[in-house]
Amino acid sequence: MSSLKQQQDSVSSVAEAVAPESWSKVSCPCCVSSEVEPLVLIQLAENVESNTKQWIMDMISAPNRAGGAHLLVHPGEDASWGRIVVAAPRCTLLRATEDLGLCKADKEGNMNLFSFHDRNNFNNVNDMQKFLTLAERQYIVQHELESMRAVKDQRIPGIPGDKGILKSRQNILQKLQKAGVIQDVFPLRDEKKLNALGKEWYLQKRLWGQPLDSIHAYFGGSIAFYFSFLDFYTWALVPPAVLGFFITFFLPGAPPPDGPKADNSTPGPGSLDADDDHLSVSAHMVQAVFSMIWSTVFMELWKRRRAALSYRWGTLTLTEEFQEPRPGFQGEVGINPVTGRREPLFPDWQRQMRVGLVSLPVVGLFLGLVVLGMMGFYYCESTMASIHKASGSIITATLSYLPSVIHIVYTNILGNAYRTVALKLTEWENHREESAFQNHHTTKVLVFTFFNNFAVLFHIAFFRQDLHLLRKRLSSLLILSQVVNQFTEVVVPYVVDRFYSSSQKGLKEDDPAADHMQAEGSLPPFPGLFLEYIELLVQFGYLSLFSCVYPLTAVLLLINNITEIRGDAYKICRLFRKPFSPPEAGIGVWQAAFEVLAFFSVMSNCWLLFLAPRIKVFTQDAGLNPSTVLIFIIMVEHILIVAKLILAFIIPDEPDWVLIKRQQIEYCTMMALKEQKVKHSDTAELPHA
Amino acid sequence: MSSLKQQQDSVSSVAEAVAPESWSKVSCPCCVSSEVEPLVLIQLAENVESNTKQWIMDMISAPNRAGGAHLLVHPGEDASWGRIVVAAPRCTLLRATEDLGLCKADKEGNMNLFSFHDRNNFNNVNDMQKFLTLAERQYIVQHELESMRAVKDQRIPGIPGDKGILKSRQNILQKLQKAGVIQDVFPLRDEKKLNALGKEWYLQKRLWGQPLDSIHAYFGGSIAFYFSFLDFYTWALVPPAVLGFFITFFLPGAPPPDGPKADNSTPGPGSLDADDDHLSVSAHMVQAVFSMIWSTVFMELWKRRRAALSYRWGTLTLTEEFQEPRPGFQGEVGINPVTGRREPLFPDWQRQMRVGLVSLPVVGLFLGLVVLGMMGFYYCESTMASIHKASGSIITATLSYLPSVIHIVYTNILGNAYRTVALKLTEWENHREESAFQNHHTTKVLVFTFFNNFAVLFHIAFFRQDLHLLRKRLSSLLILSQVVNQFTEVVVPYVVDRFYSSSQKGLKEDDPAADHMQAEGSLPPFPGLFLEYIELLVQFGYLSLFSCVYPLTAVLLLINNITEIRGDAYKICRLFRKPFSPPEAGIGVWQAAFEVLAFFSVMSNCWLLFLAPRIKVFTQDAGLNPSTVLIFIIMVEHILIVAKLILAFIIPDEPDWVLIKRQQIEYCTMMALKEQKVKHSDTAELPHA
Repeated sequence: MSSLKQQQDSVSSVAEAVAPESWSKVSCPCCVSSEVEPLVLIQLAENVESNTKQWIMDMISAPNRAGGAHLLVHPGEDASWGRIVVAAPRCTLLRATEDLGLCKADKEGNMNLFSFHDRNNFNNVNDMQKFLTLAERQYIVQHELESMRAVKDQRIPGIPGDKGILKSRQNILQKLQKAGVIQDVFPLRDEKKLNALGKEWYLQKRLWGQPLDSIHAYFGGSIAFYFSFLDFYTWALVPPAVLGFFITFFLPGAPPPDGPKADNSTPGPGSLDADDDHLSVSAHMVQAVFSMIWSTVFMELWKRRRAALSYRWGTLTLTEEFQEPRPGFQGEVGINPVTGRREPLFPDWQRQMRVGLVSLPVVGLFLGLVVLGMMGFYYCESTMASIHKASGSIITATLSYLPSVIHIVYTNILGNAYRTVALKLTEWENHREESAFQNHHTTKVLVFTFFNNFAVLFHIAFFRQDLHLLRKRLSSLLILSQVVNQFTEVVVPYVVDRFYSSSQKGLKEDDPAADHMQAEGSLPPFPGLFLEYIELLVQFGYLSLFSCVYPLTAVLLLINNITEIRGDAYKICRLFRKPFSPPEAGIGVWQAAFEVLAFFSVMSNCWLLFLAPRIKVFTQDAGLNPSTVLIFIIMVEHILIVAKLILAFIIPDEPDWVLIKRQQIEYCTMMALKEQKVKHSDTAELPHA
Repeated sequence: MSSLKQQQDSVSSVAEAVAPESWSKVSCPCCVSSEVEPLVLIQLAENVESNTKQWIMDMISAPNRAGGAHLLVHPGEDASWGRIVVAAPRCTLLRATEDLGLCKADKEGNMNLFSFHDRNNFNNVNDMQKFLTLAERQYIVQHELESMRAVKDQRIPGIPGDKGILKSRQNILQKLQKAGVIQDVFPLRDEKKLNALGKEWYLQKRLWGQPLDSIHAYFGGSIAFYFSFLDFYTWALVPPAVLGFFITFFLPGAPPPDGPKADNSTPGPGSLDADDDHLSVSAHMVQAVFSMIWSTVFMELWKRRRAALSYRWGTLTLTEEFQEPRPGFQGEVGINPVTGRREPLFPDWQRQMRVGLVSLPVVGLFLGLVVLGMMGFYYCESTMASIHKASGSIITATLSYLPSVIHIVYTNILGNAYRTVALKLTEWENHREESAFQNHHTTKVLVFTFFNNFAVLFHIAFFRQDLHLLRKRLSSLLILSQVVNQFTEVVVPYVVDRFYSSSQKGLKEDDPAADHMQAEGSLPPFPGLFLEYIELLVQFGYLSLFSCVYPLTAVLLLINNITEIRGDAYKICRLFRKPFSPPEAGIGVWQAAFEVLAFFSVMSNCWLLFLAPRIKVFTQDAGLNPSTVLIFIIMVEHILIVAKLILAFIIPDEPDWVLIKRQQIEYCTMMALKEQKVKHSDTAELPHA
């Protein structure tokens, strides 16, 4: 009750701050309300004329059939009058909820597919603040703004030349952005909610648990799912961490816990010295098999968790619409054969040619550069080592670190260059749908990241077959990457925030809304979750592919993730502008990436098992020749892969209760459709007979 | 035009033969027509009283809201009056077409999801003979009969005791069948169409091509898809057959083409004698790699073919309904949580317990018996061989075939026993949906068949590592199984048909319909396609798993399939009663089974490549040790599996034109739904405001 009151206060204060009487009027009688909640800010360029601004405001508040977005606008109150504040009337929000295929709680408390026609069967349908989350309302405003299309050829007033010519069916927002009239569109913060969320989230003392529902309400689907996954993954790290800790410290013949310490002894592969000895045969096998099963069960349980969250957040039934092409899509205007609409078309075969004949070779080239760098590194390292052996001074000892440093720098530069190239290439491939674009882009970056991060480790494991070196390398990579990561992700932004962008810090919640908007506009836009996911994926790779040579991996990752959650939370709350975040039903293509990695982990672990010196000695003692052992290991690998597939098949992807709920929703929809049809056909029956 | 006339003639002649004036009257004015087509025959038990028969006929012709099927009935004209002939009025057919989610050609010639409301936009909507195929009309009648449910508690007249008590919502047809009142329900033949189909199909001279559309029209979806698959598979055998033929006969160092002839020379594994020599390294590798790629491309192209056929036959959009439980489903009556209907319920966990704790161990037991049989066989064989060696008489030489014979008999008995057990087990597992039942049953039988057919071959390949024996065994299995198959599938039924069931042969097309019905009732029911698919699957297994040791496999299979097509066609047309066949969109679970086999083929072929004596010698000459070769082969295997997955991913599962058609259908449906909603909400708007 108190939070409800607070919410209303907060809204009314901001609404008053932008002069309620200047809002455009609603056309629909049911949408009239005493307060209007500002949701999205449109930042215009400085030199925009007032008649252009007026035209834009007219379009945004115009009804859909006139090409408008049917939203409420306010001219803003800053000195330069370069802003438009947008809000949404009730009817627009409700209709968009239906169009997006969102589920909402009905009168009986079940989530059900929202239908505008049946709106009175749903809870809170007269209070948009409770019916939709802030993130949903803001996403709907963005969605409606992006859907504006001219209904006839016309000129945008105040814009000279070709830039101002708007053709029939052309996307208005895109046109205005291309013409430089609109600089930015971003959702407005709600300081009170944000402060409450921060208190619940990164400022609290307890180690576990995040306020996922609050995150979802404030930041929206994609961000809430990232944090849910991060949370779930961190929890899932506990069993392997406990096992790794136990194996390292409590098993007979335990080694010094920090592997790299012993790097002055350099045993050849296969020899059974004190350092390689540290994992007994049984511990090694337990760790390897556990790692494979864990990675499968983890992904399957995540799918169930995902389904439960998706039900809770009403995204179980998101409609895959016949969307408009994505903004960057280029092509000759023609008739879409499916929808019959006039829109840019681009032949599929041409896109496939671009992917196959240009993108693929370029990606291959970069992978080649990675291998080249690795070979260069090994060559330099061995040269340095021999020089050091010959002279043995402190200088050569220091210089022997040079190849590593150069290689790390080279790898980083290559990675950054590749990221730029991958984005440009994917844009040039000209995908029609946003999802296809995302998938192609993510796949490109993933393949490279995988290669870049794991090529050296695979080389050591498969070609050098040197477990000692692998362990050394893995532990230093883990520790180094975590230090760098914590530094760049938490310390640097914090310092920047503290000393350079202190201007907005002085703002209080009850300062004028215009100042808040000004402050928010000056923040950098949120860079997206791509790099965060990549980081988790690389972590997961270290753990599932190689952890059996360095059992402490999970412990280190666990420690890292507990700080990571807070760091990420702080970043997204304080250091960046609030992003738009569409309702989503999961983590999308990343789930597939994690599953592929879990699949590779079987092969990798089996191979490492074959290489383990203790096992070699053990089988030699038993009088088995290497070929027999190899064949045995391959059979184990194949059986484990099949077992993995069966396990993934047996564990249902959604809990029973979600399944029943989903079926109920589908059944209700089908029955509703049938009833409508029957009504129609009953009335249509007689004339036809 | 002539076929149209013939069709009408045929219908009218049969319709007249069952006395048109005795048909029940249609209630709907648009369904009145001068002729009624008898579609399905219900065979009653001999002692059924006339008031029971009248009650059944009343129920069948009653409207749906009274629990009836809204069909037309005719009391039949046979001596015992123990038959009911059923036909369907136009409205029932059209509504069922919509319920099933079938696509039909619209006025513009595109297949589109049929909607009763929009029926006037579709072709032939006033001529049911052209609008729906015979098989579709008959399936709809069956579907409507099976959907009859009592609307209130009542007694079936003329049936004493508990058998005659019908509870509200109880399924009427099931009740009558359980009570023994209804003995059989089967679709009626159409002799004229059947003869025309036979002429086009199995009586024609040309080797290739089958009249798939006619098969679909007469026999329906599942049977048409079986023959489409058989046809496609036979075509697909041409490339491997050509390659195998070429390798066997035209490559340098060609062997005697019949492998088994050389079985007096018994080379040890790995030795390079004249017989093992017969495949050069390159030929062996070409054959193995080709076989792997072929099996993938074959399955992918079949998926495209399937999509094209599915569009042509209007089954692209079949609705997965919230079906009634399957007839055999048992459980306590309760409220279904999804649909809210009263129906038998059976907890999921109990079913899972039955599957996990009983079915799984029983299947394991049978697999154990297969292994036991195999071990016994080897033991007996080696004993016999040593006896033969010691004495060397003709008797011992003859006796040395005994273990093989006993083993084949044992395997067959075990197979038949298992089939019965698998069916009973699956029924006991009590699956609610027919599809779940089919999947569990098929999976059980598949696993066993796979094991039963391939255990010996795998044993020879993986444990004995004796390619010579493998080749010998494979060729004899292929030839023997084909001879047996042709004999049991073609010769035996033909003879039975010729000499024992000649009674119906004397019938002419213009004999009384009652005689035709009598004759059809005396035929055995069609046993289903299960064994036919199993046979194809085992064939495909021989080919994709082991063909690289016996390149003539594909040639033998090709010859077999060309006769198989005709044999199966003859069987289904002449030797069995016409089956009901639901509209289907593909070959269902069998596609997955073929894909799994194609997956195993990579492993099998790589292993056989490793064992090939020539390759052993080749690598030994090159100075490589076996471990290195093995590692290399494993890498090749993993790369090939990944390549296979990528290939399967790249080749789209449906041709572009089908994709566009499907999207058009989906888009039209979505737009139609939205329009309806808008109409509704427009009218509902004012009262709410």
